[in-house]
Amino acid sequence: MNGYDQEKLGYNYAIGRYAKPIAEVGPGDTLTVETMDAFEGRVKDAATRPSQVGDELNPLNGPILVKGAEPGDALAVRIESIVPRGPQPRGTTVLKPWFGGLSPTAKSVARPLPEIVRKLEITESGVKWNQSLTLPYEPFIGTIGTAPRSAAIDSLTPGRHGGNMDLPDVKPGAVIYLPVRTPGAYLHLGDCHAIQGDGELCGVAAEFPSVATIGVDLVKGWDLEWPLLENGECIMAIGSARPLEDAVRIAYDALIGWMADKFAFDCWDAYFLLTMVGKARLGNVVDPAYTVGASLAKKYLVPSADAKLADLTPGKGA
Amino acid sequence: MNGYDQEKLGYNYAIGRYAKPIAEVGPGDTLTVETMDAFEGRVKDAATRPSQVGDELNPLNGPILVKGAEPGDALAVRIESIVPRGPQPRGTTVLKPWFGGLSPTAKSVARPLPEIVRKLEITESGVKWNQSLTLPYEPFIGTIGTAPRSAAIDSLTPGRHGGNMDLPDVKPGAVIYLPVRTPGAYLHLGDCHAIQGDGELCGVAAEFPSVATIGVDLVKGWDLEWPLLENGECIMAIGSARPLEDAVRIAYDALIGWMADKFAFDCWDAYFLLTMVGKARLGNVVDPAYTVGASLAKKYLVPSADAKLADLTPGKGA
Amino acid sequence: MNGYDQEKLGYNYAIGRYAKPIAEVGPGDTLTVETMDAFEGRVKDAATRPSQVGDELNPLNGPILVKGAEPGDALAVRIESIVPRGPQPRGTTVLKPWFGGLSPTAKSVARPLPEIVRKLEITESGVKWNQSLTLPYEPFIGTIGTAPRSAAIDSLTPGRHGGNMDLPDVKPGAVIYLPVRTPGAYLHLGDCHAIQGDGELCGVAAEFPSVATIGVDLVKGWDLEWPLLENGECIMAIGSARPLEDAVRIAYDALIGWMADKFAFDCWDAYFLLTMVGKARLGNVVDPAYTVGASLAKKYLVPSADAKLADLTPGKGA
Amino acid sequence: MNGYDQEKLGYNYAIGRYAKPIAEVGPGDTLTVETMDAFEGRVKDAATRPSQVGDELNPLNGPILVKGAEPGDALAVRIESIVPRGPQPRGTTVLKPWFGGLSPTAKSVARPLPEIVRKLEITESGVKWNQSLTLPYEPFIGTIGTAPRSAAIDSLTPGRHGGNMDLPDVKPGAVIYLPVRTPGAYLHLGDCHAIQGDGELCGVAAEFPSVATIGVDLVKGWDLEWPLLENGECIMAIGSARPLEDAVRIAYDALIGWMADKFAFDCWDAYFLLTMVGKARLGNVVDPAYTVGASLAKKYLVPSADAKLADLTPGKGA
Repeated sequence: MNGYDQEKLGYNYAIGRYAKPIAEVGPGDTLTVETMDAFEGRVKDAATRPSQVGDELNPLNGPILVKGAEPGDALAVRIESIVPRGPQPRGTTVLKPWFGGLSPTAKSVARPLPEIVRKLEITESGVKWNQSLTLPYEPFIGTIGTAPRSAAIDSLTPGRHGGNMDLPDVKPGAVIYLPVRTPGAYLHLGDCHAIQGDGELCGVAAEFPSVATIGVDLVKGWDLEWPLLENGECIMAIGSARPLEDAVRIAYDALIGWMADKFAFDCWDAYFLLTMVGKARLGNVVDPAYTVGASLAKKYLVPSADAKLADLTPGKGA
Repeated sequence: MNGYDQEKLGYNYAIGRYAKPIAEVGPGDTLTVETMDAFEGRVKDAATRPSQVGDELNPLNGPILVKGAEPGDALAVRIESIVPRGPQPRGTTVLKPWFGGLSPTAKSVARPLPEIVRKLEITESGVKWNQSLTLPYEPFIGTIGTAPRSAAIDSLTPGRHGGNMDLPDVKPGAVIYLPVRTPGAYLHLGDCHAIQGDGELCGVAAEFPSVATIGVDLVKGWDLEWPLLENGECIMAIGSARPLEDAVRIAYDALIGWMADKFAFDCWDAYFLLTMVGKARLGNVVDPAYTVGASLAKKYLVPSADAKLADLTPGKGA
Repeated sequence: MNGYDQEKLGYNYAIGRYAKPIAEVGPGDTLTVETMDAFEGRVKDAATRPSQVGDELNPLNGPILVKGAEPGDALAVRIESIVPRGPQPRGTTVLKPWFGGLSPTAKSVARPLPEIVRKLEITESGVKWNQSLTLPYEPFIGTIGTAPRSAAIDSLTPGRHGGNMDLPDVKPGAVIYLPVRTPGAYLHLGDCHAIQGDGELCGVAAEFPSVATIGVDLVKGWDLEWPLLENGECIMAIGSARPLEDAVRIAYDALIGWMADKFAFDCWDAYFLLTMVGKARLGNVVDPAYTVGASLAKKYLVPSADAKLADLTPGKGA
Repeated sequence: MNGYDQEKLGYNYAIGRYAKPIAEVGPGDTLTVETMDAFEGRVKDAATRPSQVGDELNPLNGPILVKGAEPGDALAVRIESIVPRGPQPRGTTVLKPWFGGLSPTAKSVARPLPEIVRKLEITESGVKWNQSLTLPYEPFIGTIGTAPRSAAIDSLTPGRHGGNMDLPDVKPGAVIYLPVRTPGAYLHLGDCHAIQGDGELCGVAAEFPSVATIGVDLVKGWDLEWPLLENGECIMAIGSARPLEDAVRIAYDALIGWMADKFAFDCWDAYFLLTMVGKARLGNVVDPAYTVGASLAKKYLVPSADAKLADLTPGKGA
């Protein structure tokens, strides 16, 4: 990234304002970041035991200071490209004891899962899965976020700051909007995945080291509670919480707010329309908070202006 | 439905073995059912208050007795077609106090939502939403299920018996597999929707009366714990529970079981593959249990036979 | 129970209005019921495998028809006494695969628990636990409820009808108030426990066959949404739901309603007071819905009449 | 606290290793800390609107560096006394929009609660509630915890580090054991409550400024995953999570671990015994994670040594 050496400075395992920035950018700048995989490269082959390579996961690049960013603004981060790097097999997926969507939700007297490592050959043409099957290369950024006001959030946890959402929509062509809560924003990112299903079921997708190129812009005075995202097809709001229904609620609620604020929807009209054509995408269902992206296709951004005047007045009910 | 008159006999508000069957069919038969909307037609216009039309929702047609069905078998119900019926505007969506995805999850001291009714013109060409927007006609059966062994489950609750899943994939072209838990199966169905987004956000989709045609078949000795579904593109398992993450877990777990039993997958290989390309579709997030359909595209039904012998042995871990 | 033979008629595994009543009582009557243990006596010794004795648990006595009971009334059931019966060791607790508070919350790829049976000697003097320890005899009724309007709820699930709450407060000296939702109420009960900790951790308390004596009374026109309970010390409301926080919310909300309706509390004053001195007791955290009893000591039933007029006006806020 | 001035240095709104220590103590030392109330004194009277006094709650004293504390050790903090300070009425409780146990669990389209402030006169004799009722003075420390390895956890969130548990058992006479995860431990505390019910229902107990005296000791080589607590009557483990059932599970699981490690219990014997006589105390059900203390009376610390050899062998089941 423009001449700094994150490897020498050390990767971050928390998103906060306490580490020294490794780069400073202005609105409109483009950056190239060399991300590590989720294990910081320590799961080298099928003989490695994932439980033995350290507790901290998702090494992050950053903090990146954004000039002029103040609390109450939003960052607009455009994902330009994600390209694999490093020697083959550069991809890694594993089963870890007590981790993943089909493990117990908390410590239990059940016995742990086995430990299994699968190394994967990954190119821009695909993810080689077995002798007969190659999966598509659909890369995205698993973890991206900005510093909260006082806390520093560990790199495994998503939330209002973004973080480890593991949402496949954070991919080339998308713009993600992140809240600024501390001067300079303190952007962190990493944890790229070459492909992932809904929910990241076993907790470890096709993890790989990458060269990620992003464009950073600033929207002054747009005070976001939760991350938002936009691409050519849809607008999306992203919620993270436990239990999972709360993530769904947060995401749809934030989407209604966006529809009302920027697209002239009456809030009940938006609520009804999302009941008919809203989409909900599971990010992760395995991390300390679960992530859901709720979206609306842009072709449906058509408020019921007439209905609003007639029978949709909020508060008319009991 | 072949000469019976459900309206005269009365609709059912529970799925059990206690009501008198209204029809008897054999494996391979096709039936045509005239369903009511979720309010049994009582929300007639925008002046109706949904909270005043009765507590019981989702009137169901049935029970339909399936000859030869015994506990431990599965019903295979093929959705042939769903056609709107009745005078326009035949569609209904509403906001109800204390109901819907963005209401509190339980009684609270917060104030209730307003009551709002929107009547909708629905044809096979589309759902007229407002002056500028017509939504696609994408009909499906919201509630379909078989009787449990001793209980009779209310028509609002989905579960291991199927029931009020509100899953848009139960549409023409799909086959849903339902467990038989009582002799004769006692199939019930109703609650068709003309279109619905992921999660049925406000709790009331585009409800409408329909003529639904289904084919009923029997798979002897296939003992299902949860409903399964199949169409030209994918196989899907359907879980219903609270909190929502448990529905996700149930659905993915049942899908792994199906992949292992019928498609020769090693269970860890299936678990890994779903981590990469599994899809999760929200049915409802508003009913007494929430519903998720977890699916795998049929093109990915390719077990890693070689890997199985090498590094995927279950139990090799800690 | 006054001359009927439940054993001959068969126990019920669902609470509904579909089984034939085995007794009819009038308000003010006292009944004696011989309950079975949760396994209907089938776990005979430590060599029995609990997973092999049938899926249905909690055989219930009933239905008991209450003369004059109409929807919108409440039953008042006074627990008079619970006495052990049958040959020693008459008590049973077990570990079952996939069941209990420290098992996974849904099917998972984790391995099941071992199966273990412990038979227990139970008398009115105590529950013999091991060579050095005898636990107190603190018996209560695990499952008691009335029929819903259309459904029949399985005997393992608690809810608005009561049912399998597994709440230790349903013990001699308490009166439990249950909603009447079908004419005659159709009361069911069974599943007595000799002692149980908060949450019924492994899912199986000290189960035992008993002779339970209850008094049944009727409160006309008291329309309960959830069960309530009263003893010499406190008033309690009982909620059952998943996730557990919803059971807490339901219980406290119903308690606030009771305080407002019968004890002249302003609802915000009640909300504040319960924040200071409310008690929450876990019933079960292992069944299809979890149960919480929220209570207030009777000595605190002192409304802040003056505050009400001053600063507690609801709606004065944002 | 021995000559430092937290007010001048500023209170902390996160528990981490990034703030400069305000005191350094050795094992065996006693400290006196002047805590602020949860609003840092900004809710001065009934006319204050709680939503206008800032987003950050629970100002904490600290960090307190403990000499010799290394990751893998445990702190033993003995609560000696908690005495009210400051001018009357020194106590504060409030209703805040969108906060508290009976608010929605996430943003919703429901309307917010009213804002209400109640100021309370608090002495060591009691909490004056209204003209006729004085509640007992039962003070405890609401928030106490140690720094995690890399993150800094906001002062509203409880977790494996302790933090904002709001558990009434952290009171004079108790010893709480906290994990050390960073050299020097970086102990923080504050947020004292004069009395609180189970769950801290409205989210704001009887908050007050206090003089808290604690003794700090160190247990070398005791690697805790979750906080533990001990008093004259019982041993307790403390879990914090969402949903609430996970907090119950974590707490009981950690308690089983303690019983096995230090009191010679077989784990299944411990699991059974807690099923019979375990107690679960709700701390908060209102914060970003919910807290439960699971406990066993010391009189029951009697392992079934004989049973262990007979029928309790783990793994004997399916």
